[in-house]
Amino acid sequence: MPSAEQKPRRPNELRPVRIRRRFTRAAAGSVLYQAGRTTVLCTASVSDQVPSWLAGQGRGWITAEYSMLPGSTAPRKSRERDGRLDGRTTEIQRLIGRSLRAVADLAALGERLITVDCDVLEADGGTRTASITGGFLALIDALHSIERALPDPGRFPLCDSVAAVSVGQVAGATVLDLDYQQDAAASVDMNVVMTGRGRFIEIQGTGEESTFADDDLERMLQLARQGIRRLTEIQRGALGRRWPFA
Amino acid sequence: MPSAEQKPRRPNELRPVRIRRRFTRAAAGSVLYQAGRTTVLCTASVSDQVPSWLAGQGRGWITAEYSMLPGSTAPRKSRERDGRLDGRTTEIQRLIGRSLRAVADLAALGERLITVDCDVLEADGGTRTASITGGFLALIDALHSIERALPDPGRFPLCDSVAAVSVGQVAGATVLDLDYQQDAAASVDMNVVMTGRGRFIEIQGTGEESTFADDDLERMLQLARQGIRRLTEIQRGALGRRWPFA
Amino acid sequence: MPSAEQKPRRPNELRPVRIRRRFTRAAAGSVLYQAGRTTVLCTASVSDQVPSWLAGQGRGWITAEYSMLPGSTAPRKSRERDGRLDGRTTEIQRLIGRSLRAVADLAALGERLITVDCDVLEADGGTRTASITGGFLALIDALHSIERALPDPGRFPLCDSVAAVSVGQVAGATVLDLDYQQDAAASVDMNVVMTGRGRFIEIQGTGEESTFADDDLERMLQLARQGIRRLTEIQRGALGRRWPFA
Amino acid sequence: MPSAEQKPRRPNELRPVRIRRRFTRAAAGSVLYQAGRTTVLCTASVSDQVPSWLAGQGRGWITAEYSMLPGSTAPRKSRERDGRLDGRTTEIQRLIGRSLRAVADLAALGERLITVDCDVLEADGGTRTASITGGFLALIDALHSIERALPDPGRFPLCDSVAAVSVGQVAGATVLDLDYQQDAAASVDMNVVMTGRGRFIEIQGTGEESTFADDDLERMLQLARQGIRRLTEIQRGALGRRWPFA
Amino acid sequence: MPSAEQKPRRPNELRPVRIRRRFTRAAAGSVLYQAGRTTVLCTASVSDQVPSWLAGQGRGWITAEYSMLPGSTAPRKSRERDGRLDGRTTEIQRLIGRSLRAVADLAALGERLITVDCDVLEADGGTRTASITGGFLALIDALHSIERALPDPGRFPLCDSVAAVSVGQVAGATVLDLDYQQDAAASVDMNVVMTGRGRFIEIQGTGEESTFADDDLERMLQLARQGIRRLTEIQRGALGRRWPFA
Amino acid sequence: MPSAEQKPRRPNELRPVRIRRRFTRAAAGSVLYQAGRTTVLCTASVSDQVPSWLAGQGRGWITAEYSMLPGSTAPRKSRERDGRLDGRTTEIQRLIGRSLRAVADLAALGERLITVDCDVLEADGGTRTASITGGFLALIDALHSIERALPDPGRFPLCDSVAAVSVGQVAGATVLDLDYQQDAAASVDMNVVMTGRGRFIEIQGTGEESTFADDDLERMLQLARQGIRRLTEIQRGALGRRWPFA
Repeated sequence: MPSAEQKPRRPNELRPVRIRRRFTRAAAGSVLYQAGRTTVLCTASVSDQVPSWLAGQGRGWITAEYSMLPGSTAPRKSRERDGRLDGRTTEIQRLIGRSLRAVADLAALGERLITVDCDVLEADGGTRTASITGGFLALIDALHSIERALPDPGRFPLCDSVAAVSVGQVAGATVLDLDYQQDAAASVDMNVVMTGRGRFIEIQGTGEESTFADDDLERMLQLARQGIRRLTEIQRGALGRRWPFA
Repeated sequence: MPSAEQKPRRPNELRPVRIRRRFTRAAAGSVLYQAGRTTVLCTASVSDQVPSWLAGQGRGWITAEYSMLPGSTAPRKSRERDGRLDGRTTEIQRLIGRSLRAVADLAALGERLITVDCDVLEADGGTRTASITGGFLALIDALHSIERALPDPGRFPLCDSVAAVSVGQVAGATVLDLDYQQDAAASVDMNVVMTGRGRFIEIQGTGEESTFADDDLERMLQLARQGIRRLTEIQRGALGRRWPFA
Repeated sequence: MPSAEQKPRRPNELRPVRIRRRFTRAAAGSVLYQAGRTTVLCTASVSDQVPSWLAGQGRGWITAEYSMLPGSTAPRKSRERDGRLDGRTTEIQRLIGRSLRAVADLAALGERLITVDCDVLEADGGTRTASITGGFLALIDALHSIERALPDPGRFPLCDSVAAVSVGQVAGATVLDLDYQQDAAASVDMNVVMTGRGRFIEIQGTGEESTFADDDLERMLQLARQGIRRLTEIQRGALGRRWPFA
Repeated sequence: MPSAEQKPRRPNELRPVRIRRRFTRAAAGSVLYQAGRTTVLCTASVSDQVPSWLAGQGRGWITAEYSMLPGSTAPRKSRERDGRLDGRTTEIQRLIGRSLRAVADLAALGERLITVDCDVLEADGGTRTASITGGFLALIDALHSIERALPDPGRFPLCDSVAAVSVGQVAGATVLDLDYQQDAAASVDMNVVMTGRGRFIEIQGTGEESTFADDDLERMLQLARQGIRRLTEIQRGALGRRWPFA
Repeated sequence: MPSAEQKPRRPNELRPVRIRRRFTRAAAGSVLYQAGRTTVLCTASVSDQVPSWLAGQGRGWITAEYSMLPGSTAPRKSRERDGRLDGRTTEIQRLIGRSLRAVADLAALGERLITVDCDVLEADGGTRTASITGGFLALIDALHSIERALPDPGRFPLCDSVAAVSVGQVAGATVLDLDYQQDAAASVDMNVVMTGRGRFIEIQGTGEESTFADDDLERMLQLARQGIRRLTEIQRGALGRRWPFA
Repeated sequence: MPSAEQKPRRPNELRPVRIRRRFTRAAAGSVLYQAGRTTVLCTASVSDQVPSWLAGQGRGWITAEYSMLPGSTAPRKSRERDGRLDGRTTEIQRLIGRSLRAVADLAALGERLITVDCDVLEADGGTRTASITGGFLALIDALHSIERALPDPGRFPLCDSVAAVSVGQVAGATVLDLDYQQDAAASVDMNVVMTGRGRFIEIQGTGEESTFADDDLERMLQLARQGIRRLTEIQRGALGRRWPFA
């Protein structure tokens, strides 16, 4: 797979994005999402088995799982097979699920479970935001595949699009879409999830053994808004006439 | 234990706080922290065994663990004994640890591990912010107990205080320090960790199957800043002459 | 919490006992039980979900769980979160459950599960006997809270009270209610659980890499009987008019 | 294997005992111990790897593990393979280990670990007491096999023999050596471990949802002493000139 | 147990086999199977609880579990109690189950589960093939015990017998029925499972950090066929009039 | 990713193979291997940490792990995160590791661990043989990347190539390279691993609730040999001048 080229970037520039829908066939939605060298295979699988606490209510659920393949990093990352997910994995997959559900109309989905699996094939920073942005596309494709079976076929189960991006403070500068090296050097790291219409879904800003001031926060939020707008355009382009929003 | 009284509160008012230092004797720091009916026992234990990845570097580490006792809620909460921490527990204890380390001078601590255990005896909303605010006090007491054994006794291993509070959008209003019922009804929930000098350590804002706009964010941050200032005064009062900052 | 004073004790004297009922509010029964520095929070939670092997028989069940908080000892005790309870924890919680059930009328309880959680806040010897003696009080309070919902409100689901105490051989002497230092030095350690009417529920006597003779056994049993009588009076005093026995 | 015959027994009579030493060859000691239909394979394995907390002290350790084969009961018993030993298994193997160590001279053993495995091939009540009585014989054979390698070959690492038996109250009568049916019907169940010289190692008496009085206790202890004396004679006969005591 | 004698064997000679049916009584079938020093207790237990995926179809299931007792080897083998079966154990018990099911008429069994437990009391090579050959005998005895309760008593639920044997390349020679020392020295190791009528059920040939040629394969298969024929005669002799085949 | 076309195949024809080397960059070897719709990402990671039992011997080790992504099948396959690998996974990853080691010169590798991870992105039968055939290519690429650091750069650590293919009996016919539907319908399923020079590494033939005769075996082996020859040519083509054999 010819990797998307790595050029010197301006601090407010996204890494090049490459999207391949229907990368595999077994899952209803399957998107290979690449931002720079970060590569995530996002699949969305549909099941009639909703979680037991939701059964019989006529509503659906969307959940997500996240994992990094062992070969996605150097040195190799051990598999999480010992029955204990590390905290980072748990946090990320909860974030992905919450972000997708924030724009979902779970009643319009009917009694169905959609599981969005985000498996990182190569990790170079921003795997969680790539998972959200790419997972949203896989979700759209999965929803189209069951469109006729929905309770009300005219009512699409999503009300807005979702994209995510990271921003941070690196060596005193405010930087968009950090790669691994930038992330490792950042004093503040913030992940922002927003809708295509510009509303916040989630803000997570963390001082990495550091703290930050009001105006740092303001600059990072501004840059994140710009990045999300650009990602929304890219998503729209990738989906073409499958884009379900006005 | 006579519970701190539950009065009708204004949206910008904290719940009554009650602090009992040296609640138990075995741990170097032991604080029973109560905010309304939320009650957390925070202990700080000192050990010479730093994590293996830190050994031999002359630096210390501060970590945290969080747990809810089964009887802290009704209905009873099952113990997390099956080797799988739920995601919420993992997220919270990572947040507490990061927050305390953000103001720590780990070199000044020497090669030591301090573990801050936050065990929730009763849960009525805001247990993670109570754990941070109370855990900070237990940490201070533990640090004073080893003050003479520090590498440089004149250099206290913390550079600022830490407190945390929740804010949210409940029924259209912006509310400070949500109790369980308010939290369950909130459309947006935000936890803010700040230092006594007013810098951010962590912002985590989440739309609960909902989204929020720029001005919602601004109002919540303003209320959080006020709450943190008041909590910092309460912490200062509880520590008296043990307050290590100017 | 001002600790109950530690005075020099005679070998046949109990440590000072302090009991605070309704220490927390979420659980139906909640007792902070203190014997010397040993402090246990005992809560009793009521549920309609009996174990599956008991379902549909119209009878109830009483079970117990025991745990030591990490900060209850120095050095700090690791949490039992890896899915493997150590043998000591398992033995103790089985003993607490058996002891409480020995005086219970499980048919009079109706199809209900009562879980007595004994969480040790500070450990200075005798945590299992404190858990039984204090757990009995939490159980009583929980039963009173559901008294009107019982199958036959006039038939209280307990037929006798329960208390427990340790005795041992320390440096040749027979000693009552061993604290941690005495327990570590004992050649024989015996835990005795009895009813308020003076019948045995459980006797567990163990030579600690040692053996003991018939007359050692006799002296220890005699001392235990005295201790249990005194503890029963203390329990009765703490419950006042809630004491359900003649 | 022709089972030892099951005849009507008097309440103070042991079940027939059958002992086969060197039942297998891989382990240093290997005894097939049969009491009535209860059949336990006890092996004792010697290793130079003492537990880490004992390393470098020149002393040894004796530990025990207990397990029931799935086919040992009807209905079949599931294997304990899920990483969670049930409480009963844990209690029993701790009891076996403590009982054998009570007569051991661990310094005379040198820096060695002896593991006594008690695997129940068929279970008909009294498996823990059979494990102790048979495990003692396997331990003796293992010790003889390393006798020349001991720090002081003239100092045998055991100072007394160990045997165990159950007693109980069944339908108002005091009964020795309960089989499964008697055990299931007993209101009080007591396991007694004693040395060949008549000293107690362990007493565990439990009212099974029942209580017992002083004179019940006395009668049970008397019967247990008789049973232990008889078992000690049987052990002595099985070992012949290998019996290391006067 | 007097071990079957170990004589010098020819490469095409089986180790001496000793079979004791009804070794224990709790399980419906119980066979102590010995090949040289390798000793396996095979029990077959009958239950009405078929696996959930088979429920309600009127068909039965046969499954197997395999385990080595800790004392079966020197040095002692740790128990697999940590919730993770090693790969070898998993492979072996799946092989045993598949082999027995290959000759089973699961509809003729009715809605029943038969579990064949193969517990290795002593291991000297060939424990998996001994488990299959001995487990088949335990299965036969268990089936006879329920013969009258079968859906069609005239239709025995097995259509052929099963036996297994190992062959290998050791020091250039083709050898039958490898003991532990031969197995450790083999460059190729092959396990063959066949029916009494001479059809293959399973062939597993593995180069041990080595490879093998066509004619090696042919010689090994020929030797295996001879071994299986002899084992089938031994099985037939052990069962006598219980042999259900022509 | 445009899938390799699925045409009607003759029984002795392989599915179309597609190979993309350097699919990701973090791992030293990374091959996307596709046989029909079966797609496996094989990465080979190099580490200086050999398993502890091999440390200090100057020799290396090659191991493999196998996993199916949840979205690789419909319905979705749950992740094996509960600490218990299912037996199939364990068998497959042991087989892959053994197969690669059979042609390896572990001394020529130096004290290094190479881990070959085979993650199935889409599963349509034959995932284990695809993993071996593709994993071999990733291994070659990883070895070339460290060629200069080998103990003896002129001595390549592999002596032959490895490929694997399945054969089976489907509806009476002998078929090569079974896809999922054929595999589900097969009465006999055999996996054969061979070297490029035509020697066997592993043969695993299993009657699926069925048995097979000598001539069935012969026909399957013949078809497998042909398939392996063709796969070896394809491997050679994909590696070009990187093919290290004559």
